[in-house]
Amino acid sequence: MTENKRTTIVLFSGDYDKAMAAYIIANGAAAYDHEVTIFHTFWGLNALRKDENIPVKKGFMENMFGKMMPRGADKMSLSKMNFAGFGPKMIKGIMKKHNALTLPQLIEMAQEQDVKLVACTMTMDLLGLQKEELLDQIEYAGVAAYLGDAQEGNVNLFI
Amino acid sequence: MTENKRTTIVLFSGDYDKAMAAYIIANGAAAYDHEVTIFHTFWGLNALRKDENIPVKKGFMENMFGKMMPRGADKMSLSKMNFAGFGPKMIKGIMKKHNALTLPQLIEMAQEQDVKLVACTMTMDLLGLQKEELLDQIEYAGVAAYLGDAQEGNVNLFI
Amino acid sequence: MTENKRTTIVLFSGDYDKAMAAYIIANGAAAYDHEVTIFHTFWGLNALRKDENIPVKKGFMENMFGKMMPRGADKMSLSKMNFAGFGPKMIKGIMKKHNALTLPQLIEMAQEQDVKLVACTMTMDLLGLQKEELLDQIEYAGVAAYLGDAQEGNVNLFI
Repeated sequence: MTENKRTTIVLFSGDYDKAMAAYIIANGAAAYDHEVTIFHTFWGLNALRKDENIPVKKGFMENMFGKMMPRGADKMSLSKMNFAGFGPKMIKGIMKKHNALTLPQLIEMAQEQDVKLVACTMTMDLLGLQKEELLDQIEYAGVAAYLGDAQEGNVNLFI
Repeated sequence: MTENKRTTIVLFSGDYDKAMAAYIIANGAAAYDHEVTIFHTFWGLNALRKDENIPVKKGFMENMFGKMMPRGADKMSLSKMNFAGFGPKMIKGIMKKHNALTLPQLIEMAQEQDVKLVACTMTMDLLGLQKEELLDQIEYAGVAAYLGDAQEGNVNLFI
Repeated sequence: MTENKRTTIVLFSGDYDKAMAAYIIANGAAAYDHEVTIFHTFWGLNALRKDENIPVKKGFMENMFGKMMPRGADKMSLSKMNFAGFGPKMIKGIMKKHNALTLPQLIEMAQEQDVKLVACTMTMDLLGLQKEELLDQIEYAGVAAYLGDAQEGNVNLFI
């Protein structure tokens, strides 16, 4: 139907399983020569957090949000059957047994395949997340840049 | 890729944060000359409810559903970290501090920008919501009208 | 905009109401001559489970997951107001009163309308689901096949 194949995903969810689905589709699309963007907004920004504690100055509420949200992809919880953290352990056990890639590995693969990882600056501001806390080599943009990418392709997903 | 730029969003979710994301994308797309439709179905219909109590005749179960669901955009809860209503208060506090638009303001802006707001008649029936309870100047339609809009554009999202 | 009308849905969610929305859109699109695919992944695979117990050999964790997940569309829960199973009963009561189709009926109608129902083999493996446990006359594929369908049309949804 179209010549430039393009997949653009809004990752809104902060769930491990939903982020996995987003990154599996993104990596698949990149392997089939799509230009791929993942636009991380709201809780989806947590997938881009570094796992160490980065000391940055924040307001009181932003600090509380920062402490309550998972620090990095590996600490995210499941959308279903989380069982206070036992669900993710089960899933990760099964994934290891089946040699499936973990979410941090899927993110690394996406970066190697030149998937454009974007952090939504408006919601970073809202949740009090700062650039120092997020992975290196990602881009920062707003809804206008998202739409610029989205309208160029037909595989558009909100996850 | 296409000449008529169009964004069509199904708003299924009744969460404050997801509805915010839907309306931010919709307002952005309208600003960039997209024709934009938000098709509200299931819990997403609550974003269109008036905040006052509208006396209408209902069956017993429809009445119960009506009482249990949030009356209007401002009363919706968060998809994550809701903390029995404390999460939305935090988010709204931060939004105020950052001069971000609230959900009711985003909906008003969408109406000013001629974003087409549609209520799904089939699910209104199911949840026992009546036209008197919903905002003025919205449209009423079913899945056929949704598809008519969706198939004309390439930015299609289910939120 | 395009000649071959096509709707491709990723059904990730295991919620009754979200699966209903997916199948209502799919059936509507099929009625309007779209080629329609529903790609079931993660918890969405539960919509394709047979409702009887199928004895198959599984590992310990796969067996636990299999027991904890709903066996078939009729046993799925609501994304909102589930109230430990009371919510689905209410919704089903209201649906019966309004002569709305149940989820199992919507799935049957989709099969009659030649909607392509696909089970994601990678996540079947992860959740320990086997072909014997799923409905007959469905297809089995991975992300490459999904993308092959998705990139041919412009109504792409992740539910």
